[in-house]
Amino acid sequence: MELGLYSRCVPTESQLLSHIYARSGSIEPGAGFASVIGPGDDCALVRSPGGDGLLLTVDQLVEGRHFEPGTAIDLIARKVVARSVSDIAAMGGTPSFGLATGLLPDGYEHGSELFDAMARWAAHWRCPLVGGDIAFGPGPLSLTVMVGGLRSERVLTRSGARVGDWVYVSGSLGGSLASGRHLTFEPRVQLGRALTSMPDVHACLDLSDGLGRDAGRIAVASGVRIELAAASLPAHEGCGWRNAVGDGEDYELCFTSSDTELPPTVEGITITRVGRVIEGEVGCVVRTPDGDLLDAAELGWDHGSERPGGALT
Amino acid sequence: MELGLYSRCVPTESQLLSHIYARSGSIEPGAGFASVIGPGDDCALVRSPGGDGLLLTVDQLVEGRHFEPGTAIDLIARKVVARSVSDIAAMGGTPSFGLATGLLPDGYEHGSELFDAMARWAAHWRCPLVGGDIAFGPGPLSLTVMVGGLRSERVLTRSGARVGDWVYVSGSLGGSLASGRHLTFEPRVQLGRALTSMPDVHACLDLSDGLGRDAGRIAVASGVRIELAAASLPAHEGCGWRNAVGDGEDYELCFTSSDTELPPTVEGITITRVGRVIEGEVGCVVRTPDGDLLDAAELGWDHGSERPGGALT
Repeated sequence: MELGLYSRCVPTESQLLSHIYARSGSIEPGAGFASVIGPGDDCALVRSPGGDGLLLTVDQLVEGRHFEPGTAIDLIARKVVARSVSDIAAMGGTPSFGLATGLLPDGYEHGSELFDAMARWAAHWRCPLVGGDIAFGPGPLSLTVMVGGLRSERVLTRSGARVGDWVYVSGSLGGSLASGRHLTFEPRVQLGRALTSMPDVHACLDLSDGLGRDAGRIAVASGVRIELAAASLPAHEGCGWRNAVGDGEDYELCFTSSDTELPPTVEGITITRVGRVIEGEVGCVVRTPDGDLLDAAELGWDHGSERPGGALT
Repeated sequence: MELGLYSRCVPTESQLLSHIYARSGSIEPGAGFASVIGPGDDCALVRSPGGDGLLLTVDQLVEGRHFEPGTAIDLIARKVVARSVSDIAAMGGTPSFGLATGLLPDGYEHGSELFDAMARWAAHWRCPLVGGDIAFGPGPLSLTVMVGGLRSERVLTRSGARVGDWVYVSGSLGGSLASGRHLTFEPRVQLGRALTSMPDVHACLDLSDGLGRDAGRIAVASGVRIELAAASLPAHEGCGWRNAVGDGEDYELCFTSSDTELPPTVEGITITRVGRVIEGEVGCVVRTPDGDLLDAAELGWDHGSERPGGALT
């Protein structure tokens, strides 16, 4: 969920999130709940008194920042639900219920249609809206969707990557904003669950800020170095390796496994080996087709500022 | 949570919420979760596969709508957390964990302080923030806090009032916005839990839109008529009965019980008998000191438009 960061000032956002993390990590939830995984992964994981593992995530969607003015209502609704469902997928869980809020511009006339569509998409992914809140105000249309999910027997996190693992991605990468795919992507719920039953899979997240930056998050969380091979990246048609490593909003899964070869597809989704977890300085680098090594973080994109493959400004 | 409606156009909001309700009511949550109480009460109630009853609520807080520009950061943070905690209290539950989002105005410099304070207040009420999302954008400062809680053995709803019940309120009413109490109220968590162990208590909610309007919600949900006695309303100093019945944002509990007399205090909070559940046309009326009967809905206030006891515009 904190992948859903949209800012002209990423360091400040990171600082803000570190505040949440620092404050919350040491305080146990009340009434017999226990915090298993706190802020910093795709979802929080809380254990209920009866032992159920609840994955919890929330994302925002703001007009002009995450979608263009004039975007079809149904696609706006789809995206705000899909982003949170994708976070559940990244941890290998199953979406279960949702809560939605809408801050609608004064005079906005499509509220019914919008909430209707959000409810429909939430039901589509099996996390029906059980509640929410609506307000009117100045400013752009702004939505949030919280999704709760049930953990699988094993939970995938960013911090499990081991030296010697291979790095894999699902689907194809790049050009999501320019193509409109950022509005129509399919959260990889079945794939995420399937990965939890593959014991050699050690770490996973969903790609929102570009493979380079997001693989770097696995590297940092796991305390390892990741080297991506530009030549092996599965780029969408019309996209080069720079798009595949740098563009945001693919919402494919990136995961590591000690298996050298995985099946070419899992749950019908193409899987491609794109790099390796190695020893060395923590971080993520990209081996270019020319053999150069580039810092992947500098190829990633920043929601809200420069958008390499993006249409939003 | 849907009590937290702030609009210049309440009927439209009601329509929007009815869309959520209609869409969601018939669709069961996924992964073995079950919806026990859907949208339309202070919280949703979901049963986890292992049998835990989870209360879920979310509220928004928007600058210029729910607090004045220039309000102290700590009070903003306190209010957005307290509103959701109050919803858990209204159902008689125990706050357990929280998720927060912030849409911060571009260039906003107090994000760290704000999230720090939100995390601190969430921990204070035993629902520490386990995750969240931060974005920057145009428009006013806008926050959401989702709180999850554990149900008590009995859950209080709006729909349990019975003809013959008496209507009670906690604390004193009126003038919350004018006095600043809307920023400093104490959610009635202990009181709400205590009420669940009093079998004669049949219905409960927290007062956000004024006693008249909110008691009317109990009346509608329960299919009964409520008559409030203006002369018995516990008004704050400087407030008359019209404030006590019409002003919003008291966040006291209003509940019905077949007990004619309750202890003067429960969990240290003063309890006052203010009306009766009777047969007749569904709705809420107020018997004025002069003996007239007024429609309570017309004495309630509308977040965002005319505010009888309010300072916000």
